[in-house]
Amino acid sequence: MKRRDFLRTAGAGLAASTLAAPAIAQTMPKVKWRLTATWPKSLDTLYGSCEDFAKRVAESTDNNFQVQVFAGGEIVPGLQVLDAVQNGTVEMGHTAGYYYWGKDPSFGFATAVPFGLNARLQNAWLLRGEGGALLDGLFADFGVHGIPMGNTGAQMGGWFRKEIKTVDDMKGLKFRIGGFAGNVINKLGVVPQQLAPGDIYPALEKGTLDATEWIGPYDDEKLGFYKVAKYYYYPGWWEGAATGHLFINRNKWDSLSKSYQAIVTAAAADAAAGATAKYDDVNPPALKRLIANGTQLRAFSPEIMEASYKAAIATYDDIGKKNARFKKIHDSMMAFRDTCYSWWQVCELTFDAFQVKMLGRS
Amino acid sequence: MKRRDFLRTAGAGLAASTLAAPAIAQTMPKVKWRLTATWPKSLDTLYGSCEDFAKRVAESTDNNFQVQVFAGGEIVPGLQVLDAVQNGTVEMGHTAGYYYWGKDPSFGFATAVPFGLNARLQNAWLLRGEGGALLDGLFADFGVHGIPMGNTGAQMGGWFRKEIKTVDDMKGLKFRIGGFAGNVINKLGVVPQQLAPGDIYPALEKGTLDATEWIGPYDDEKLGFYKVAKYYYYPGWWEGAATGHLFINRNKWDSLSKSYQAIVTAAAADAAAGATAKYDDVNPPALKRLIANGTQLRAFSPEIMEASYKAAIATYDDIGKKNARFKKIHDSMMAFRDTCYSWWQVCELTFDAFQVKMLGRS
Repeated sequence: MKRRDFLRTAGAGLAASTLAAPAIAQTMPKVKWRLTATWPKSLDTLYGSCEDFAKRVAESTDNNFQVQVFAGGEIVPGLQVLDAVQNGTVEMGHTAGYYYWGKDPSFGFATAVPFGLNARLQNAWLLRGEGGALLDGLFADFGVHGIPMGNTGAQMGGWFRKEIKTVDDMKGLKFRIGGFAGNVINKLGVVPQQLAPGDIYPALEKGTLDATEWIGPYDDEKLGFYKVAKYYYYPGWWEGAATGHLFINRNKWDSLSKSYQAIVTAAAADAAAGATAKYDDVNPPALKRLIANGTQLRAFSPEIMEASYKAAIATYDDIGKKNARFKKIHDSMMAFRDTCYSWWQVCELTFDAFQVKMLGRS
Repeated sequence: MKRRDFLRTAGAGLAASTLAAPAIAQTMPKVKWRLTATWPKSLDTLYGSCEDFAKRVAESTDNNFQVQVFAGGEIVPGLQVLDAVQNGTVEMGHTAGYYYWGKDPSFGFATAVPFGLNARLQNAWLLRGEGGALLDGLFADFGVHGIPMGNTGAQMGGWFRKEIKTVDDMKGLKFRIGGFAGNVINKLGVVPQQLAPGDIYPALEKGTLDATEWIGPYDDEKLGFYKVAKYYYYPGWWEGAATGHLFINRNKWDSLSKSYQAIVTAAAADAAAGATAKYDDVNPPALKRLIANGTQLRAFSPEIMEASYKAAIATYDDIGKKNARFKKIHDSMMAFRDTCYSWWQVCELTFDAFQVKMLGRS
């Protein structure tokens, strides 16, 4: 709760000495910011949350604080949002922290790490557990203020041209999968590939790519992968929930009044809730359509899941030895995970399991 | 999105004709409202969310919009919040819609109904599905504007003095359970009891009460039930997730500027996310403490769960025949539930199940 009471005090002094008109300037100054998103406009789930955010900020300030939203590539390449915010090219951006894991692997914990938290627990760890403060320290080192904004829920494991049943089937598999998870799955013999979204479909079609992961039914359906790779695997154990972040240039954030900071924070929370709700609303019917179009659902086998789990732990250990902050954040998240799932297995998940059991019976 | 552009237009005209000072009054008028909560202060989860909300509204408006929060009973009895807001005794209140199911059983859907939705799906149905608009119609009939604010997650089935294994064990059981769920469980032979929170513990201790449900580990622990009823059953199938609502007197809501309406809406979303995160943060360690203090966890048997499910369906059918709105909202929620769980059983729940399977292995 970085309060900046000195700003308010200074502002109040100014208002007292210069009467009514400057008081308007103090409470509702005209601010025009640019928000650059990682997402293309076609990703209406995530890009839409940025528009929701901007709309709420404008409404809350009688249009005095305006945020103009740009899609990835319009003014900044999609994967350079953090850099653009850090160096002040734009005031704010919306992206996923884990895209910047090359700068510091600790960024992974902002979004999702293999066998980490589900959406509600990621929220809880960020908002009420230790996660928020731990990541604040990381973000400060990169000159940004970060606010969680939107979670996709558990993501799918992706589209595979052939069935994979054993770890042996994974060896040599050319799988389009990003960053940290690519590093983990490489330990199973997979050859991670980095392709821009537009290049994935043709590569899968030609067979120069064996598999790709993306997000979930609604977003994946638009890219048409089901037409060229019919096996749709689950769960995406590297993204049990992926959280987006609103990053704000630290100096720009500090220049805002306390009321504008509060408005931005609340508008982000509102957009965050809307984003997850949208995913939960649009994914289920999209899955039905995909199945109607011939998609074959497949679970990763226990062998593959357990080998992946071991590979993840080995990766965490390796990095943790070299990076104390990574180890500290990792240990916090995993302790939170284990405590929470001990409770969830009792109540949340038995409720859910019963609801699944009764599907079709009423 | 009930826009009230005429208000803004009127305000702008006023500002233009009278220059600077009234423009302040238009954008940031002094507003002082009272919020009466159902909850005692000791229920720091739910009562705390009201304080979070009030704080965010004040911060967002440079303290011009102040909401004073009152605990249940301070100015209005805890279960008369809706009435007090409707008749304008207070401007706003925080409560659970289902307490008012006697006015119209459709109020149950605002909070939780037996075998309804889990927390994320309840949010999705309210924010992006049909639930929001359907309930808006109900709330309008009672002169209030409603905004979802906070969800407890799945609740426990409660504290029982003796083990219950079969439906026969339920017969004649004096169980403190409220409203709609009491009506359902009565079909299994349970005799629902209504007791004020302070009366539950002594009744359990004396044995004039056989069992009580409340919320979950953190809130339940404070009332000490584990000392007099050691079997703690799960899941609370009548509350797979319970959503609180901020109710605002309709005329008072309409009197707010569009910017104040936006600030209230976003502050409620922010407080809502914080409330669920708090539950997810504090319940797991509370459960550990309860177990360390001798609490015995027990799952409701499949026989009891399935009999309860049938009793719930029979209750829905009965009410639906007499109440078209109830039937319409019920059908919407249950269709949403079935579509969503068809997707959740694929991805969300297999991720969660694997995490539970690996507990203790890293």
